[in-house]
Amino acid sequence: MFSVILARPENSENIGLVARAMKNTGFKDLRLAGIKNLKDKAFKTAVHAEDILKDARRYPDLDAALADLHVVFAATAKARTNFLSLTFEDALDKMRAYPPSMRIGLLFGNERTGLTSEEMRHSNFRFTIPQASRQPSYNLAAAVLLTLFPLVHSPLPVPARATAKPLPRKDQDECIRRILEILKARRFMHETNQAHVTEMIHDLFGRLAMTDRDRRLLLAIFYKGSASRANKKGV
Amino acid sequence: MFSVILARPENSENIGLVARAMKNTGFKDLRLAGIKNLKDKAFKTAVHAEDILKDARRYPDLDAALADLHVVFAATAKARTNFLSLTFEDALDKMRAYPPSMRIGLLFGNERTGLTSEEMRHSNFRFTIPQASRQPSYNLAAAVLLTLFPLVHSPLPVPARATAKPLPRKDQDECIRRILEILKARRFMHETNQAHVTEMIHDLFGRLAMTDRDRRLLLAIFYKGSASRANKKGV
Repeated sequence: MFSVILARPENSENIGLVARAMKNTGFKDLRLAGIKNLKDKAFKTAVHAEDILKDARRYPDLDAALADLHVVFAATAKARTNFLSLTFEDALDKMRAYPPSMRIGLLFGNERTGLTSEEMRHSNFRFTIPQASRQPSYNLAAAVLLTLFPLVHSPLPVPARATAKPLPRKDQDECIRRILEILKARRFMHETNQAHVTEMIHDLFGRLAMTDRDRRLLLAIFYKGSASRANKKGV
Repeated sequence: MFSVILARPENSENIGLVARAMKNTGFKDLRLAGIKNLKDKAFKTAVHAEDILKDARRYPDLDAALADLHVVFAATAKARTNFLSLTFEDALDKMRAYPPSMRIGLLFGNERTGLTSEEMRHSNFRFTIPQASRQPSYNLAAAVLLTLFPLVHSPLPVPARATAKPLPRKDQDECIRRILEILKARRFMHETNQAHVTEMIHDLFGRLAMTDRDRRLLLAIFYKGSASRANKKGV
């Protein structure tokens, strides 16, 4: 199941167009994170997709909006130093390969700024929709539509794979947070490299789309302080 | 060469979004038929695609707008009794198959009415972009974008990828071997769990398709014995 999450969208007309694009392609779950108010203009551009707008859930922040999802793909127009980006085709292939029971989030940033690095950390994978010139970037609703359309109208049917289910995002984040804490306690991170290392660690372990087993193994490895303690973690 | 022709577009914001979608996908020739006036709003939504709007030619009627083209494909949301429609994929295949010297027109109708039957007669082929429900139809700029995008980003053949290259397998294995050694030295692994843990570690870090940067980060993390040592690893 796919959810579309908009982080800090500021133009109500765009939100309406996103709802319309979702209706056109058969998607329903729209989530709005950090939005101030939804103006009437949104309903004007949502033509015949008012139900999606009405049912759209609002969240105070991105954490809350993504908490129950298993995997999150973030759309980014520009390459980020600390986050690897999938090609558009690879990202679509990956999305299509998950079984229907998986809750997959497609995350799009603010119209002007895109996603901040902090917002990017909440994703497992990043992808970039190819474009002809550096400027302009795609309109928000255009980016959503270009991502959703090939998910339902795939040129080649890809069979669902029986992959292990990743943990909900909030548990993945919690695990990464604990790893970062340990690295900090061990002074692997210090003030000057903290932001940089934090992003690299998020990128690295985000790409695992961490399962419950992965988490147990990772925490056991990082808590390894003493052999006896590691054993208690059940590895 | 492709031209986008809008028949009697009435919403200036949509015209601006069409220009932006063309810029995003690398197309230049926009033609406006039967348009009364182009409002400033068009330039607002055309973000960084003002040149396409400025250069857009205006024609009193469709006849004039299509006169110099060789083939015209008309987009239509609903099936027309007297006009056969190609599937979207077939239409795209046909468009892609023409040599570059051909002047191909992509014709889109008014936002509310679509193309009239009379307008449709000026086309060689009709095509319909698949949609999930009868209503709403695609937004005008959305329909243009969905048509242009696959013309430049055909799913086959797959172009060379710009993602970071994973290390050769032997280097990935070597990195995992070093991690295993460290875990052994720290007595995280012992005789009874060694085989099991070794496989889990291979699975976990194998899934990263490890790049050179990943390797540096991982080894720095695992060698963390002392903070100064980790720093020497270049993180």
